[in-house]
Amino acid sequence: MPTASTATPRLTAKGAATRRRIIEGAAAEIRERGAASTTLDDVCARTATSKSQIFHYFPGGKEELLLAVAAREADRVLEDQQPHLGKLASWQAWHDWRDAVIARYRKQGIHCPLGVLITELGRSTPAAQALTAHLIDRWQAALRAGIRHLQDTGEISRQLDADRTAAALVAAVQGGVTILMSTGRISHLEAALDTSLTLLRTTRN
Amino acid sequence: MPTASTATPRLTAKGAATRRRIIEGAAAEIRERGAASTTLDDVCARTATSKSQIFHYFPGGKEELLLAVAAREADRVLEDQQPHLGKLASWQAWHDWRDAVIARYRKQGIHCPLGVLITELGRSTPAAQALTAHLIDRWQAALRAGIRHLQDTGEISRQLDADRTAAALVAAVQGGVTILMSTGRISHLEAALDTSLTLLRTTRN
Repeated sequence: MPTASTATPRLTAKGAATRRRIIEGAAAEIRERGAASTTLDDVCARTATSKSQIFHYFPGGKEELLLAVAAREADRVLEDQQPHLGKLASWQAWHDWRDAVIARYRKQGIHCPLGVLITELGRSTPAAQALTAHLIDRWQAALRAGIRHLQDTGEISRQLDADRTAAALVAAVQGGVTILMSTGRISHLEAALDTSLTLLRTTRN
Repeated sequence: MPTASTATPRLTAKGAATRRRIIEGAAAEIRERGAASTTLDDVCARTATSKSQIFHYFPGGKEELLLAVAAREADRVLEDQQPHLGKLASWQAWHDWRDAVIARYRKQGIHCPLGVLITELGRSTPAAQALTAHLIDRWQAALRAGIRHLQDTGEISRQLDADRTAAALVAAVQGGVTILMSTGRISHLEAALDTSLTLLRTTRN
């Protein structure tokens, strides 16, 4: 699936690989020391590239690089939920996904790499908003497909609006994560996922 | 109900009133110009108090004042949901609450006064985490009482764990608000509330 961080149609294979190496190196550097205090020199040193190479791939400099790193971190949010998120065809798959989400965020704790970048870019800037909206849309589409599977097999009510139910699930996870990041407690994320799945199951035709 | 912003047992009535005036003035100033750029001098000017008065009520200076303002903004999050949040005894009351929450956040848009303060205090500091946890606990308690009402009157299943269901609802609202703040879209908050209420209703015994 093409995403913002890999959509580089005009690059050669070698160029795309270099661009990817810069993004991965910058992402690692930012995870270690934060977005504000990471300089382009740090990224050059870590990725063995020159400043002119960085500006070749990211003409907008640090801000454009941060946006590409944010897109990479957004991809990672979904990748960390795979393979479960992509094949929510049974209750077992849904519960495996639930466990993967809990494990991911338990490990992540109160520091969110994507949140750090969005804050640095300015959460209300159009670029940051578009990036977040794109992540949410993809997340919701995957959950919607899973809900339709359950509807097709008669596991849950066909009267539910699959898209809105998926939107509610994304919100539930996002809220649980926000509360985890704000309080250090994972119990709300667990309650949100478990309650949502339990209630969905109740609608069985 | 006593809250962090009003718990001043050692003050005279006049002292408590002055302290409250400082907090309200600082809250208004911060809503207008942000937490980082509001100085104690700004608060003095706005509230017609002297610097020494401010330090009398807030010996810790700006940080202690910011914490008191954050507690005030947290109170306001719940006040804005009243009287509905305090009497969730029927489906009608729940739907009125739903409408009040949507209206409140639609009006607030992408800028959250409490979020601004929590960010300024440092979201992972113990004081900020305790304040957020206290807000969530009170919110959850009010929703739990409402869920128990619906269980007592047979409107929803008695088998639901009222506390975890309330935790899931708080997460759903919080997630919808976070998505609103990150994308400008209120549709997830609406989907989260509507889906939660619809699914709860499905559990009717």
